[in-house]
Amino acid sequence: MSSLPAPAISELGIALCAVLILLVPFAAAGLALINTGLGRSRSAAHAMLASLSAVAVAALVYFVCGSSWGGFAGRPAHVFMLGGKPWNWLGSSPFFLRGLPLDGSPASLAAWLQMFSVGVAALIPLGAGADRWRLRGICASTAIFAAWTYPVFGHWVWGGGWLAQLGVNYSIGHGFVDAGGSGTLQAAGGVTALAIAWILGPRRGKYSTAGMPSAIPGHNVILVILGCLMGLVGWLGLNAAGAILFTGSVPGSIVLIAINTTLAAVSASLTAELITRLRFGKPDASLTANGWVGGLAASSAACSLMKPAEAMLVGIVAGALVTFSVEWFEFGLRVDDPGGAISVHALGGLWGVLAVGLFARFPDQLPNQWLAQLIGIATLIGFVLPTSYGLNWLLNRLYPQRVELEGERQGMDLHELGADAYPEFVTHTEEYLPR
Amino acid sequence: MSSLPAPAISELGIALCAVLILLVPFAAAGLALINTGLGRSRSAAHAMLASLSAVAVAALVYFVCGSSWGGFAGRPAHVFMLGGKPWNWLGSSPFFLRGLPLDGSPASLAAWLQMFSVGVAALIPLGAGADRWRLRGICASTAIFAAWTYPVFGHWVWGGGWLAQLGVNYSIGHGFVDAGGSGTLQAAGGVTALAIAWILGPRRGKYSTAGMPSAIPGHNVILVILGCLMGLVGWLGLNAAGAILFTGSVPGSIVLIAINTTLAAVSASLTAELITRLRFGKPDASLTANGWVGGLAASSAACSLMKPAEAMLVGIVAGALVTFSVEWFEFGLRVDDPGGAISVHALGGLWGVLAVGLFARFPDQLPNQWLAQLIGIATLIGFVLPTSYGLNWLLNRLYPQRVELEGERQGMDLHELGADAYPEFVTHTEEYLPR
Amino acid sequence: MSSLPAPAISELGIALCAVLILLVPFAAAGLALINTGLGRSRSAAHAMLASLSAVAVAALVYFVCGSSWGGFAGRPAHVFMLGGKPWNWLGSSPFFLRGLPLDGSPASLAAWLQMFSVGVAALIPLGAGADRWRLRGICASTAIFAAWTYPVFGHWVWGGGWLAQLGVNYSIGHGFVDAGGSGTLQAAGGVTALAIAWILGPRRGKYSTAGMPSAIPGHNVILVILGCLMGLVGWLGLNAAGAILFTGSVPGSIVLIAINTTLAAVSASLTAELITRLRFGKPDASLTANGWVGGLAASSAACSLMKPAEAMLVGIVAGALVTFSVEWFEFGLRVDDPGGAISVHALGGLWGVLAVGLFARFPDQLPNQWLAQLIGIATLIGFVLPTSYGLNWLLNRLYPQRVELEGERQGMDLHELGADAYPEFVTHTEEYLPR
Repeated sequence: MSSLPAPAISELGIALCAVLILLVPFAAAGLALINTGLGRSRSAAHAMLASLSAVAVAALVYFVCGSSWGGFAGRPAHVFMLGGKPWNWLGSSPFFLRGLPLDGSPASLAAWLQMFSVGVAALIPLGAGADRWRLRGICASTAIFAAWTYPVFGHWVWGGGWLAQLGVNYSIGHGFVDAGGSGTLQAAGGVTALAIAWILGPRRGKYSTAGMPSAIPGHNVILVILGCLMGLVGWLGLNAAGAILFTGSVPGSIVLIAINTTLAAVSASLTAELITRLRFGKPDASLTANGWVGGLAASSAACSLMKPAEAMLVGIVAGALVTFSVEWFEFGLRVDDPGGAISVHALGGLWGVLAVGLFARFPDQLPNQWLAQLIGIATLIGFVLPTSYGLNWLLNRLYPQRVELEGERQGMDLHELGADAYPEFVTHTEEYLPR
Repeated sequence: MSSLPAPAISELGIALCAVLILLVPFAAAGLALINTGLGRSRSAAHAMLASLSAVAVAALVYFVCGSSWGGFAGRPAHVFMLGGKPWNWLGSSPFFLRGLPLDGSPASLAAWLQMFSVGVAALIPLGAGADRWRLRGICASTAIFAAWTYPVFGHWVWGGGWLAQLGVNYSIGHGFVDAGGSGTLQAAGGVTALAIAWILGPRRGKYSTAGMPSAIPGHNVILVILGCLMGLVGWLGLNAAGAILFTGSVPGSIVLIAINTTLAAVSASLTAELITRLRFGKPDASLTANGWVGGLAASSAACSLMKPAEAMLVGIVAGALVTFSVEWFEFGLRVDDPGGAISVHALGGLWGVLAVGLFARFPDQLPNQWLAQLIGIATLIGFVLPTSYGLNWLLNRLYPQRVELEGERQGMDLHELGADAYPEFVTHTEEYLPR
Repeated sequence: MSSLPAPAISELGIALCAVLILLVPFAAAGLALINTGLGRSRSAAHAMLASLSAVAVAALVYFVCGSSWGGFAGRPAHVFMLGGKPWNWLGSSPFFLRGLPLDGSPASLAAWLQMFSVGVAALIPLGAGADRWRLRGICASTAIFAAWTYPVFGHWVWGGGWLAQLGVNYSIGHGFVDAGGSGTLQAAGGVTALAIAWILGPRRGKYSTAGMPSAIPGHNVILVILGCLMGLVGWLGLNAAGAILFTGSVPGSIVLIAINTTLAAVSASLTAELITRLRFGKPDASLTANGWVGGLAASSAACSLMKPAEAMLVGIVAGALVTFSVEWFEFGLRVDDPGGAISVHALGGLWGVLAVGLFARFPDQLPNQWLAQLIGIATLIGFVLPTSYGLNWLLNRLYPQRVELEGERQGMDLHELGADAYPEFVTHTEEYLPR
């Protein structure tokens, strides 16, 4: 078999899947609010406009060309024989979705879902680049991500590519499995966020000359937590739509998926809240919110394949992971990630991918699923990180991604947009400025 | 018949019901925004974090054990013979939803809906306890509510329990009927809010030594009204999903349910706006918003069983009730309820329950439905109020629920979280402080 | 044939359509946030309360009487013979939706959709009247719009009226076609916004004595862009539900509709961002947001009838149109439209109507579709503009629509509501005041 066939979905499953995809923009809105709320007030309009722009660029570029490389099981692809096995490397559908009837077929639903999902993934690096990443750089970087990085890896996993074929070709479990996108969407975005944070460097004033970080609190906690609640609905859509399209879940399994998604989020947030309370004496609202989203990111891969109690465990681990990882990046690695994007989406997501190997139950249980997941994780880190780092490094050479010092002092809003987010409110403008 | 059978729902009805439940988090988000907006700026992060935590604790605890007592028609329950009739007192399903296939069956949909609904109900007392209720107290109190108070009463009404059996056992109408949760969700939360407000006492500075209340306006009206609009979508989900699962509505009835829900909300808000304009010369934005939510709360019980013109009437009465009740609690009873939670959810909800007795039309009209509703109201007040008061009073003995005076002066944000919601904005910090 | 028959929709199509209508309140929430964010902080509570009130009045009045004139294909209507052809002029259903079983029939779904849609349309003029339109005037004007202006034109297009009959009667294409409401909803609201802006006149301080406008930036860009993201979901609901009900789209076509809607919005916003960057050196966040919504407004009419690449083009043109039009109204016509409502909804919407003539593909292509669209545009401008202007002019005579000078100085919040939106935040109250 040169490529995996498209799944058969009932008419009811198609309608349900369509409705689930309609909810995905709430995941984007949630991340936009979280990133904005965790940044500074003088960059808030910039953060929101950049989010809107990134969603727009991602959808447009994916439509124009990304969908060609991304493809879907059963659609045209470049397949090479390697060791006597067909390796499906890259989609080769026409640009502009030409030739794909947009009639509710699984392939058309997948194309639509990806137009939204790539926008969600593209928002993740914005959290890491907050308060210093130029708008034009964001748009260009998003275009690269939506045209190449995301669809290529997505093809391997969701498009019938070689990672999905590992089971058919080499009897490694069911091949790499990622129902809702813990790897393909969350970790791909999170790993790109790491590349961006490295390239941009920390904000002025974040680290003293002695290298000690100073806390720069988010400017609006309300936005952050509203983003968590809206994000939950978006993730329910992402996870259930992905499970239907990419792992063949039936409509009734939405109950299991939703309960698992919810349990992962709530367990992770309560874990983060408890840990911060135990360590710092008071719970930390930002980290609790980060925990919530980390739980969501971790829930996606195995959402339809584990039991609720296991989803709870996935959440608890994700919440702990995110909490310690945020500190590790800030203090240990001196990576300035205002939104916690790397910890939440890269580590949370990779843990979710691993959870498939640990917990997933299939109708037909096959051996070595954990191996397929490890291969997928290695591939993700081995492909997305250098690709994102390399292409954004190149972009940075052509056009500096980071705003000038003066812009960071003024705030991104005034410098890049010529107007503040909240022009009528009096703010403590002199705080958290470079010393 | 020892217990009521589970309803039969078509495959389409199941998918529709699932989608409706996906919208319920917007009810939670709406209440979180309303409670936060009606509180003070220096408690705003606390209000949002407490909302997220309450939703999380409620879902988790309901999953772990509440679902066991709550159950569903047709699932295991403790049934005792009393006067020759089987009385179904308490669910007895296994903990952690074990043994319940999460496959889209009505029982599984009900379990999922309840995991979300109990979180919505748990947010109601937060409105009454705003600006002074400690986060740990909120979490503990929510755990009690989700583990015991909510599922027990819920079992009696929605789980095939004795209130639902009143018709079968004693020919009292169709038994107690509450399609979308005016009683089971709204009034149960609202009555618990009253218990909390009594236990906590009013905010410092709310009442002068002469006992006169001073107005403490909410800090952000935008959040409040955004909460109303988001809440509408959540309630449409709550009402229609409940009607399908608990009163056997067919998919097509969603049109009637949605029109009724909307008419109740809009009539109630316009009534509140008109009354406040007539009495104070200017319409009051907070009370108009409270009226809107009161209309939603009142719409739930009979949403699928009345005509639109009757829903309008339900809304008008709810709007008037809420407006006068807020004043009655503030001036007459000296109960400090910053979010108006008691008036909106307890009185609005109980009025909605009563409306079933007045207006509901069933395919097979049976006598004495009003009596079943009155028995339900008496049971609700007689069970939930002492249970919530007693357990929270006990909790308050073990661990004081109310923040120290110094915390109220600083604001909950700084005192309990160590950080403000809006650290960069300049606020009038000295206003509305204890004299 | 005296009137067009009601469409036949499968049971699945009905359930899908119902779910889509459930999302429409997000369009209302989005517009409310955009209007509020683009206004001043001292009118923000007023803007939100007015939005809630307009949604409420519109739904209520449409339910009471507007639905009677609006009607639906196959329902009672006044039909006159003119030139040997039946002209369907006005619906004649009973008031209060009596006689219409609210059971999921297409006519009942249409009635429910319209109760929400008329509220969305009624929010459009609020953007043009921001910071100076009295709340009572808004309610009265909305009542007129929902009782008469909107349902009459809506009947002609969506209710089987004479514009829809142009094809059957005179072989002009398929008659006037407007799947999601670019004309019936957006342009009708936008043209009414123009009437309101003319009647109210510009804000104090907007134009110098020499007639030069001064920029008055919106007070909260976060709300504006959050409104764009939430609005996308609402529009997906509006467009797909309208296409199913009014142009007979099958459930599977939701993929095409959603991709088209999204592409129009993202192309329009990126176009506006690019144009403002090229012209002013920096991108303008408000105009980018306006572009986004203009793309949505333009996408509606042909959402189910064009190819994605054409939707992209529709968006690009809409984005450019909105950007230049905002300036033209502000500088050229001296019309003060703080929310850009006229440019976004009237021009964006009319362009969308025209796009049907240019791009639409029907299963059975008929000649002269462009003529039907031009007749529709002429009718819309010829009927809605004088009707809205005339009735609101009359209203203004009976009760002045514009707040007193003192109210504009104080802000609408304090003057009309007696309370501020953000009472605890310190604002630059003296800026942007009349000189």
